[in-house]
Amino acid sequence: MSDATAVASVPMQWVGPLRITGNIAAIETEVPLATYESPLWPSVGRGARISMMVEQGIVATLVDERMTRSVLVRAQDAQTAHLAALELDARLDELRGITRTCGKFVELIGFHHEITANLLFIRFEFTTGDASGHNMTTLAADALLTHILKAIPGISYGSISGNYCTDKKATAINGILGRGKNVVTELLIPRDIVHRTLHTSAGAIADLNVRKNLIGTVLAGGIRSANAHYANMLLGFYLATGQDAANIVEGSQGMTVAEDRDGDLYFACTVPNLIVGTVGNGKGLDFVEENLTRLGCRSPREPGENARRLAVIAAATVLCGELSLLAAQTIPGELMRSHVRLERRHETTKIGG
Amino acid sequence: MSDATAVASVPMQWVGPLRITGNIAAIETEVPLATYESPLWPSVGRGARISMMVEQGIVATLVDERMTRSVLVRAQDAQTAHLAALELDARLDELRGITRTCGKFVELIGFHHEITANLLFIRFEFTTGDASGHNMTTLAADALLTHILKAIPGISYGSISGNYCTDKKATAINGILGRGKNVVTELLIPRDIVHRTLHTSAGAIADLNVRKNLIGTVLAGGIRSANAHYANMLLGFYLATGQDAANIVEGSQGMTVAEDRDGDLYFACTVPNLIVGTVGNGKGLDFVEENLTRLGCRSPREPGENARRLAVIAAATVLCGELSLLAAQTIPGELMRSHVRLERRHETTKIGG
Amino acid sequence: MSDATAVASVPMQWVGPLRITGNIAAIETEVPLATYESPLWPSVGRGARISMMVEQGIVATLVDERMTRSVLVRAQDAQTAHLAALELDARLDELRGITRTCGKFVELIGFHHEITANLLFIRFEFTTGDASGHNMTTLAADALLTHILKAIPGISYGSISGNYCTDKKATAINGILGRGKNVVTELLIPRDIVHRTLHTSAGAIADLNVRKNLIGTVLAGGIRSANAHYANMLLGFYLATGQDAANIVEGSQGMTVAEDRDGDLYFACTVPNLIVGTVGNGKGLDFVEENLTRLGCRSPREPGENARRLAVIAAATVLCGELSLLAAQTIPGELMRSHVRLERRHETTKIGG
Amino acid sequence: MSDATAVASVPMQWVGPLRITGNIAAIETEVPLATYESPLWPSVGRGARISMMVEQGIVATLVDERMTRSVLVRAQDAQTAHLAALELDARLDELRGITRTCGKFVELIGFHHEITANLLFIRFEFTTGDASGHNMTTLAADALLTHILKAIPGISYGSISGNYCTDKKATAINGILGRGKNVVTELLIPRDIVHRTLHTSAGAIADLNVRKNLIGTVLAGGIRSANAHYANMLLGFYLATGQDAANIVEGSQGMTVAEDRDGDLYFACTVPNLIVGTVGNGKGLDFVEENLTRLGCRSPREPGENARRLAVIAAATVLCGELSLLAAQTIPGELMRSHVRLERRHETTKIGG
Repeated sequence: MSDATAVASVPMQWVGPLRITGNIAAIETEVPLATYESPLWPSVGRGARISMMVEQGIVATLVDERMTRSVLVRAQDAQTAHLAALELDARLDELRGITRTCGKFVELIGFHHEITANLLFIRFEFTTGDASGHNMTTLAADALLTHILKAIPGISYGSISGNYCTDKKATAINGILGRGKNVVTELLIPRDIVHRTLHTSAGAIADLNVRKNLIGTVLAGGIRSANAHYANMLLGFYLATGQDAANIVEGSQGMTVAEDRDGDLYFACTVPNLIVGTVGNGKGLDFVEENLTRLGCRSPREPGENARRLAVIAAATVLCGELSLLAAQTIPGELMRSHVRLERRHETTKIGG
Repeated sequence: MSDATAVASVPMQWVGPLRITGNIAAIETEVPLATYESPLWPSVGRGARISMMVEQGIVATLVDERMTRSVLVRAQDAQTAHLAALELDARLDELRGITRTCGKFVELIGFHHEITANLLFIRFEFTTGDASGHNMTTLAADALLTHILKAIPGISYGSISGNYCTDKKATAINGILGRGKNVVTELLIPRDIVHRTLHTSAGAIADLNVRKNLIGTVLAGGIRSANAHYANMLLGFYLATGQDAANIVEGSQGMTVAEDRDGDLYFACTVPNLIVGTVGNGKGLDFVEENLTRLGCRSPREPGENARRLAVIAAATVLCGELSLLAAQTIPGELMRSHVRLERRHETTKIGG
Repeated sequence: MSDATAVASVPMQWVGPLRITGNIAAIETEVPLATYESPLWPSVGRGARISMMVEQGIVATLVDERMTRSVLVRAQDAQTAHLAALELDARLDELRGITRTCGKFVELIGFHHEITANLLFIRFEFTTGDASGHNMTTLAADALLTHILKAIPGISYGSISGNYCTDKKATAINGILGRGKNVVTELLIPRDIVHRTLHTSAGAIADLNVRKNLIGTVLAGGIRSANAHYANMLLGFYLATGQDAANIVEGSQGMTVAEDRDGDLYFACTVPNLIVGTVGNGKGLDFVEENLTRLGCRSPREPGENARRLAVIAAATVLCGELSLLAAQTIPGELMRSHVRLERRHETTKIGG
Repeated sequence: MSDATAVASVPMQWVGPLRITGNIAAIETEVPLATYESPLWPSVGRGARISMMVEQGIVATLVDERMTRSVLVRAQDAQTAHLAALELDARLDELRGITRTCGKFVELIGFHHEITANLLFIRFEFTTGDASGHNMTTLAADALLTHILKAIPGISYGSISGNYCTDKKATAINGILGRGKNVVTELLIPRDIVHRTLHTSAGAIADLNVRKNLIGTVLAGGIRSANAHYANMLLGFYLATGQDAANIVEGSQGMTVAEDRDGDLYFACTVPNLIVGTVGNGKGLDFVEENLTRLGCRSPREPGENARRLAVIAAATVLCGELSLLAAQTIPGELMRSHVRLERRHETTKIGG
């Protein structure tokens, strides 16, 4: 193995601008998407254009944020595990104190535990400032685990990660208990824009969303997921902004809701597991710094604010691409036609979702 | 939106060599991994080193391959949907003929259908030569759907994709019915190598695998998944070889099995949904061509052989990283120590899975 | 342990009549429901009344039937497992012959297999005449497994049941590949009946179905399930007709679809895993024989016809109860009011779903 | 529909005695099981016999108890839903006060909420004394919902149940957040008893448990489930003790853990969703009163103690049947042989799980 580091040069374009309002920021910005699937750019671009036609744009509401790491301890028996869990509950403040020694930006919010046989899974929840927090929380979890094993009798080391976190695997626990930024984006599109720009109707999109995203995914045996292709937008955005893109796995588990409101389209994407940061791994690269700066996410702000800003931009980007694909799929043959149009302009294309 | 295409330069290293045998190829090769998470390189490297110490290396068995696309049609009622499904079953040869008009390399293997209310989901299964097949199967599905809507009465267009495919969402259907390449990799590691190189024991790894990967993931509400971090290796490999990396979502759903065989370690990773190709989107880029060539996947071979070769290399890479992380997690504090060691060598690091 | 057998006397009422048409039978019949939850009776009764107001009644379409048992074999390695699977595929006729020696009514339709590491799961699919088929398929699977272990080299006994069947556990495989009778029931209710009898509107029921049964269940981490309370109706019906009521577990995994069609309500329940029979365990009891006879399911017919008739009656009963509860839940306070009304009439009540 | 109530006479036997210790009670008791599947009796009986051979018997640890009901409200938009959720968090004491007006035994422990688009799901958690609590919690949820809709602006009625509870459907949320009694049972069986009574070895059972219950269920697409047939024992026990047996659906989602400890067998069953009570629906029936009395669950105790006692007896019964079936399945042909033996003694039989 040579230590020489080369680069994989993933094509990247800025798409937009799109308009975002909501409880985090009022923004008009282009967004960078790095991908081998070039049709993603015009697809997100079409959604972005619509966001600019609506006064409020995409309303992005961040409803939760936390980062997690679960440790596993093995007890002599279930009763010992149960007593250990009760003991932990009583020592929250102590555990918070230990966490504080692990870094300036990491805070223990709380934890959740579950016992199976003589195994005790402890899922710690932290805030991590502007970092996505993978490392910070592992460091803190390691310190907490070391402390717990000393302080509580009858238990021994199981694992620094018990897969109950859950990192880069699609599970139900992340959406239910929270992991990463949970952002709801909403766009209310007047009827004439639906017709003129998307060439379809609110009713057609609402019906398709129920039949494809909800019923189709349920029948396929999906888990906490009802969308067409969140993973595509998240991959492009994560790569362009220096995120750990393997977190698109849990990012892919969001829900699209569409309603026909007297011909207007209410379109909402809930992305409960956005794992993004503006500092940390991958952020030292020049193009990443440039991109984050251009997105306004490297400005001097309170810790966490830049990351929240980045999260709502990511979520709004998801909405743009999801809206565009769903609209296309309401129309027989449209996906193929846009494919052919694009083939004339680009060398390579892909038809997604 | 400017049309100017820049690049996201993702750091890439070649790791290995690793040794692969099995029903597809006998290979010794380094593998390229593009990632912002530099600890991935030494982690995969450690597994690769072990594969070279064992005569057979990693035995990779490709047990299935197919690519899918599901269409959705809406019938007047369930009885009409049922009759349409029976009619389709009777017309397999006809549908195969239509598929053949869609391209030289796309073949219809068969299809699976499911009825809910008056909705009929039809999941077509194809072989696609050396392409991963997203576009080819969408083109064929479009032609098949158009034909079906004309040929069978009482049904109408629902969607060109019914989310029953399933693309880039974690579901159960892909693993059960097949999508992409299904590769099992196995490595039988003598006891002394487990001790000397991994600093642990076969029993410790087998126990951890049950408690973390199986029990932990089940408790977290996972779906057809029991592994530590397949997504990390797949992301790095997919980016380096021009794959659509959003397919790590279903790629993340594999199963690790570890057994203590009298002190020797039997370690197996089953990756049922590898969506990889050696031609198609993302493959025109220079560094991708170079990487595929260096991996021996651009040689003149029968259609499909290069893609199968690429698939077993991807799967073996997954095993290397999975083995290394699990071994580390059997040892309290090891993850943190290796993190600190790496921090001295690299600027940025990440502690995974 | 004394061997004396007492009885648990579960309260039972006949509810209805309800009207059924479709591809199995045209029936008007009352249905027996045994339950401790007496509100189930008027709830199903209300749905039944509506079925009688509509000319076609509930249209029940049986779209599939099969019974399954999975065996598990362990191979030397994945390659041996793979070769064994290919060998099995080539020997379908031989396996059919062995199955025929196991009973007059059991026929092997086919099988599905999956490999993980060196484990080979084989899921046999049978028709079983008028029996639900638990025993028949276990007998056949035992004979098939014994034969396979002799005929194919390199494999050994794993388990007579590999949980890949899947019996009495909620999984995705049963719905996707089929297990038991798969029945779709549909009822198209004119607008005025919706208003007059259910005191609500088609739109309100359709909206509730999306928000509660689809979105709510997905968020709760459900698996292939979108309904309010199929399990309640199935329990009552299974107990009253001598079925193995533990099969309500997979029975609970069905999907309700509701559409507002210009004010009329299209209401459909798909119950893909009805495990019912008219012969076999539990059928020798006097009250069971009486109930089956009164349902017209003990008449001289071709093998399987009585069981199919029973299945569509079960499925129609599910629709009646599901419709009634959903309608009630569209109206704030209605569940409580009906509860109070019932309390005056019955000693014990329960508010479901 | 006639209002005449007949009975379904389900065969019932008392099985055991079994021995239970742990944090709830030290008991030696027979247990009643009502079922059409008579092999269940000797199967549970064999496990019970083993519990009597071990000094501590089955150690049952109750680790949690709560009953839940989720309501659904619809907000103007996500931001309004978010503010409503924050408002609720601040009003916990107020909501507790309202709950207290709903009954003597119902207490609000807390609640969990989740937002998707403009929908707010609120999952209330209660203690309910000796009742399983279906009705009590619905009454309280109705009062709480009515209050919330008045007190908080911008939200309207969605549903009295949002399927996020979750009642009688298999989901992930119940196990993660708790619903019903969560009981872990453990039995440590000396090597010679494993050999002499179960005719197998600890290693064989541990291996089977991993391959069948864990790997097999994961591959089948199970959700938070890894056991052979908990549903069978729960059905028999629930019917015999007047429980709402449709709750075996979530009851079926538990996890079996088996370890070979130097030849001794550590065997544990975790049943996280036991929905049982000693008062309420179904409890007025004579045989139910007799059964509960004979189980010692109608004695004057603090509220909740009788129900907890019943829960640990139910959980221990689950362990007995699970152990017996798994042991049998380690031995090729054993299931068929015991079937034949039973057929000579009983008229009807069934081979389970």
